[in-house]
Amino acid sequence: MTDVHYHDYLQLDKILNAQQPESAKNNISAHDEMLFIIIHQAYELWFKQLHHEADSVVGIMRKPSLNDNSPELQTVVHRLNRMAVILRVLIHQIDILETMTPMDFLDFRDMLRPASGFQSWQFKLLEAKLGLKFEYRHGKEYYTSQLRQEHIDLIKKAESENSFLQLVNDWLERMPTAPLPPKGGVAGTQPLLNQDANNNTATLQSKVSAMDNSPLGGRGAWGNFDFWTTYKAAYSNSLAEVEKNNIEAFDEVFFQQRETHYTFSSKANRAALFIMLYRGYPLLQLPFQLLNNLLEIDEQLSTWRHRHMNMVHRMIGTRIGTGGSSGKDYLKAAADKHYIFKEIAQLTSFLIERRKLPQLPKAVERTLGFVTAD
Amino acid sequence: MTDVHYHDYLQLDKILNAQQPESAKNNISAHDEMLFIIIHQAYELWFKQLHHEADSVVGIMRKPSLNDNSPELQTVVHRLNRMAVILRVLIHQIDILETMTPMDFLDFRDMLRPASGFQSWQFKLLEAKLGLKFEYRHGKEYYTSQLRQEHIDLIKKAESENSFLQLVNDWLERMPTAPLPPKGGVAGTQPLLNQDANNNTATLQSKVSAMDNSPLGGRGAWGNFDFWTTYKAAYSNSLAEVEKNNIEAFDEVFFQQRETHYTFSSKANRAALFIMLYRGYPLLQLPFQLLNNLLEIDEQLSTWRHRHMNMVHRMIGTRIGTGGSSGKDYLKAAADKHYIFKEIAQLTSFLIERRKLPQLPKAVERTLGFVTAD
Amino acid sequence: MTDVHYHDYLQLDKILNAQQPESAKNNISAHDEMLFIIIHQAYELWFKQLHHEADSVVGIMRKPSLNDNSPELQTVVHRLNRMAVILRVLIHQIDILETMTPMDFLDFRDMLRPASGFQSWQFKLLEAKLGLKFEYRHGKEYYTSQLRQEHIDLIKKAESENSFLQLVNDWLERMPTAPLPPKGGVAGTQPLLNQDANNNTATLQSKVSAMDNSPLGGRGAWGNFDFWTTYKAAYSNSLAEVEKNNIEAFDEVFFQQRETHYTFSSKANRAALFIMLYRGYPLLQLPFQLLNNLLEIDEQLSTWRHRHMNMVHRMIGTRIGTGGSSGKDYLKAAADKHYIFKEIAQLTSFLIERRKLPQLPKAVERTLGFVTAD
Amino acid sequence: MTDVHYHDYLQLDKILNAQQPESAKNNISAHDEMLFIIIHQAYELWFKQLHHEADSVVGIMRKPSLNDNSPELQTVVHRLNRMAVILRVLIHQIDILETMTPMDFLDFRDMLRPASGFQSWQFKLLEAKLGLKFEYRHGKEYYTSQLRQEHIDLIKKAESENSFLQLVNDWLERMPTAPLPPKGGVAGTQPLLNQDANNNTATLQSKVSAMDNSPLGGRGAWGNFDFWTTYKAAYSNSLAEVEKNNIEAFDEVFFQQRETHYTFSSKANRAALFIMLYRGYPLLQLPFQLLNNLLEIDEQLSTWRHRHMNMVHRMIGTRIGTGGSSGKDYLKAAADKHYIFKEIAQLTSFLIERRKLPQLPKAVERTLGFVTAD
Repeated sequence: MTDVHYHDYLQLDKILNAQQPESAKNNISAHDEMLFIIIHQAYELWFKQLHHEADSVVGIMRKPSLNDNSPELQTVVHRLNRMAVILRVLIHQIDILETMTPMDFLDFRDMLRPASGFQSWQFKLLEAKLGLKFEYRHGKEYYTSQLRQEHIDLIKKAESENSFLQLVNDWLERMPTAPLPPKGGVAGTQPLLNQDANNNTATLQSKVSAMDNSPLGGRGAWGNFDFWTTYKAAYSNSLAEVEKNNIEAFDEVFFQQRETHYTFSSKANRAALFIMLYRGYPLLQLPFQLLNNLLEIDEQLSTWRHRHMNMVHRMIGTRIGTGGSSGKDYLKAAADKHYIFKEIAQLTSFLIERRKLPQLPKAVERTLGFVTAD
Repeated sequence: MTDVHYHDYLQLDKILNAQQPESAKNNISAHDEMLFIIIHQAYELWFKQLHHEADSVVGIMRKPSLNDNSPELQTVVHRLNRMAVILRVLIHQIDILETMTPMDFLDFRDMLRPASGFQSWQFKLLEAKLGLKFEYRHGKEYYTSQLRQEHIDLIKKAESENSFLQLVNDWLERMPTAPLPPKGGVAGTQPLLNQDANNNTATLQSKVSAMDNSPLGGRGAWGNFDFWTTYKAAYSNSLAEVEKNNIEAFDEVFFQQRETHYTFSSKANRAALFIMLYRGYPLLQLPFQLLNNLLEIDEQLSTWRHRHMNMVHRMIGTRIGTGGSSGKDYLKAAADKHYIFKEIAQLTSFLIERRKLPQLPKAVERTLGFVTAD
Repeated sequence: MTDVHYHDYLQLDKILNAQQPESAKNNISAHDEMLFIIIHQAYELWFKQLHHEADSVVGIMRKPSLNDNSPELQTVVHRLNRMAVILRVLIHQIDILETMTPMDFLDFRDMLRPASGFQSWQFKLLEAKLGLKFEYRHGKEYYTSQLRQEHIDLIKKAESENSFLQLVNDWLERMPTAPLPPKGGVAGTQPLLNQDANNNTATLQSKVSAMDNSPLGGRGAWGNFDFWTTYKAAYSNSLAEVEKNNIEAFDEVFFQQRETHYTFSSKANRAALFIMLYRGYPLLQLPFQLLNNLLEIDEQLSTWRHRHMNMVHRMIGTRIGTGGSSGKDYLKAAADKHYIFKEIAQLTSFLIERRKLPQLPKAVERTLGFVTAD
Repeated sequence: MTDVHYHDYLQLDKILNAQQPESAKNNISAHDEMLFIIIHQAYELWFKQLHHEADSVVGIMRKPSLNDNSPELQTVVHRLNRMAVILRVLIHQIDILETMTPMDFLDFRDMLRPASGFQSWQFKLLEAKLGLKFEYRHGKEYYTSQLRQEHIDLIKKAESENSFLQLVNDWLERMPTAPLPPKGGVAGTQPLLNQDANNNTATLQSKVSAMDNSPLGGRGAWGNFDFWTTYKAAYSNSLAEVEKNNIEAFDEVFFQQRETHYTFSSKANRAALFIMLYRGYPLLQLPFQLLNNLLEIDEQLSTWRHRHMNMVHRMIGTRIGTGGSSGKDYLKAAADKHYIFKEIAQLTSFLIERRKLPQLPKAVERTLGFVTAD
């Protein structure tokens, strides 16, 4: 190993010589273009770091062996948390750009055409990796319309692979949790699988078992206790009069074949809800943190989009963006729509009070803690 | 003067004994209710401070003598800046509430009905004072539907008085700035005042002079220079093909009788635009900071509403709020709509590049600086 | 249950009527005194909340049964994290006070004498509860010199009870971890217990066993593996030439009777180091988060003290504080000295690279994960 | 002008390919090294931007013609404010690095030797440009001991030129303000210039006039009013008994030849104090903002150093830093000592209550406002 020097290690010759203002090329004085370049480079550096973290958590979640007892689960939790911390700084960074007034921006704005933040392929690729589906994109194809083919290819590839959200679904489906009743139906719930007119009980049962998570502690640990029917009744009781039709949503989310635009199956939803309800047990603590970190990331992304939109509006008003976009309108629609983890957020609607939670059988409880040395 | 003690001075006996959790009254354990109470009390304390600042700036702006040379202008700028700083902390404070998970909230949520943050009259009163008009409220009367009469009265009173925004308009109208051409029309602009079919030139001119700001440095200082016609031409040239119809908006904003739902007259808009364009001159620096601080406040309010909405969604999903509101939907609509100072923000659309700005006559320039001692 | 109204629930009549500026009593205009009062009230509200959290974690940690498998451990972790989040906002809040210029403060400063933030008994009580010892206080008795007897009593009581830090020590001592070698000594370490000149092997062994944590997985699980001798050798190898005398500190921290001004015993230090080294195992994840949160709290408190000191300096320069303190000097000394959890922070000095960590015996590893359902 | 593309404009090929982890070269897995590289690159990018702003304000302040009425003064104020905003984000960024635990750092730490953040020449150069003198550096030559000659040369050059602080001094000396009494002495002040034993009145007067600022509004505007003697008396009255020897400092700061390690002359100090006292007048508003922004920058730098120190301590404890430094100790000493603008901060000690301020003569007041058009 040879000696390392800070300047070389960080390749500062590259980093600090990568700012070539267009205004300088045009012999026009525009002091703030340097800020404009540097802040975007800082953003792209951090986007690279976000990819580094996202790739690592995708890599871990892809392992079929990953379960609730895997040591790597905490690595996933830790890195998702880091992503949220980074996003907070990226939001804060907007404060810096807002010290550039609209008049200062006009000094060089026209020289940038048609470049635009809309061409940040790293950001779009990140959204795709995490799980923003093409179908959910505002304006569909529009979002790649100004990208280079090589970058479009990267995004299309990410969209064609399992997103992080899809991997979370698969992991949840593997999680042992409360089983469906053996008879194949939760009391009061309409036909479990609604896509097949020719159901008979036998078929139904086999389908149920296919769509059931493995029972926590083994089916025997649950005895006769029909958790989901009990829970559904408790949830129903908790609803105010005006909320009564939430029960249909409840069935749809947890016991039906879900429409294809959803990523989470009802099986995964059941495991996720169970984690939220019983996170008090040691075994469920990290899974809960994982889900919570996803909501945190979504919220930070949402705030980022919101502040970005306001900033753009403050900067250019109703003028056309340098990339030809109508600026604020696109950003607003995207901000309203692009919640990547909304299927998790939505589960909050189906919680009940802790003191009304069904008591778990002792044999199940035992499996939710650590081995005790005795 | 007698000795003052910190504990008494701050009335800590009152402050620290004002937390009576409903859960305690009901003998139910709900650790996080204390947080819920304290954070809302902290918010209301800060709202009181925001009112203290808002009342003081309204008081100053109400003085008819306040002009661009008034020493109090910097007090206004300073206090508006403080309001923005406070709002930033209030946004940050949401982080604390988000450490309460939905399950923790459910421990005491039902006991609070029908109380709700929607009953924070101080916040609504603040919006009204600053200039959010009743007509712009999402859901109109709805926003006061759960308030007590005494608080509704306060808000209605504020709405019936001159809001801060109205006072800013009046101050701008008093500001000396570039005059309209004496012939009463900016070249290429349609009839200046469109409400009167019987216009003849004489009437028109008297109306113009009524609606004109006093000319900076006196009319003589401007000589033959027709600033607004020159500026309009420059603006028109700066528009991209797809933006060409902005020129109609330009006329509407700066030279026409404005529709009644606007607070700013075209006269005020002209003064505000002039300030934005020529803020480089000493005299216009504080007025520029004032306008900029209003945009900053609006942006912080916007972020606050946005994060609040996301937080509520994360906490209760699609359940009905404790106040019976449909929660997120109302908050979303209010967040989208309630930009108090949007008429100022919109002026950004009408700026042009600094190097294409009309050069002001020397005699005018002189009046934009300080007296020099010689 | 009767209807609850936001205004009553939060006792806003109390909260919003607890501001009585001295300047108003003296008929002197001092706009910023309101800010001064309200920000201190907001601080005290949050201090109350910090006490609410601190009391709850102290209550949990006091249970002798609390071990690494207790469900409540995550409650402790969660609430410590909340305390850190609150402290971040309290630091941010200083930004607001800094919008008050020194001249604005002078408008009412003299009327407050001798009141001073130094009389905030809640803050000192919090430090005491968490574990700041009287002996470590800068200026010893000085810190209570301006408090009322009732508040001094509260602090003295907290100092006489087990602090949170002491309870963490006790919990760590109960944690099963790597055992000391049965022969009673770690190779190359000087007399294990240095207080007793008449040691013979028999005595020593009994003392060792008294001071040893219970072995993780039972002593049998460790076989012949002498973890601490192995680890000490690895640590020694990792030291640069100039760091060689760290090995003495190593012995002192982990294998000797510690001087009485330390809170953590060598037994607790060993458990804490083991947690830091092997946090990758599920069982150690929450204990690691707990320790990490304490460092986070200490760092936030440190930043708070630092910014507070700078702010006071900016406000009053080298003048005497309203409480008669020499202002900045006391604050600086306290900031330098009052790291409550420094004994934990110090353990970082004794880590080694992960890839050089001793491999734990399989039988031990098994006890570090969850029961697997098979 | 050819079309510009975001990717090329930002030179992302360079920026995103400048991360070459040492661990990868050594075939060792160290996930967090990427974070370590990227965060330091982000810091260096922002340091470049800080230099861009610092160079521009130095350039403006260097113009001998810059006075209180210069339009560029607001550019200086605006850019100093931006520097403070950037520094806030840089402080926040430490949160990200703190998501790297000490064990994660150890994965690659040894491979970096002897590189260290201590080799960030941009930061040291920035300190030098702003005004941190070589004599004030903790450890004197030590701070450049690990830099390359080319970077040492840059710093030495900056130290040999007028720093921003020096230019602020020169600007303040040019500012018209309250004159010294014509007789050459402020009542009760010891020999005005203490370096010359042979003073006679004539010499003294000529020296006074050399060291006096030009009188605001011309000497005639002040009539017989001896501002400084009046102010000194008022200040003296404001002192508490224990503060009485502040009056000596007062003389030393405002009326004596200052020791050479100070940058600010007594002449500059007088102008600065006058600005702080009478910032209410329009003319003094921007100068006040300028001084205030310098204090803000110093405070942010101080917080940055403080948090950096804590972070390093948390990361490596009492180990030796990769650069061979004793880590925390150096950082602590530097943090305690390196307040660049402390001479301005110190002036706060010499303010008095606004309502006791000497009333300025009408003729002087007139020159503190704008030309009024009439």
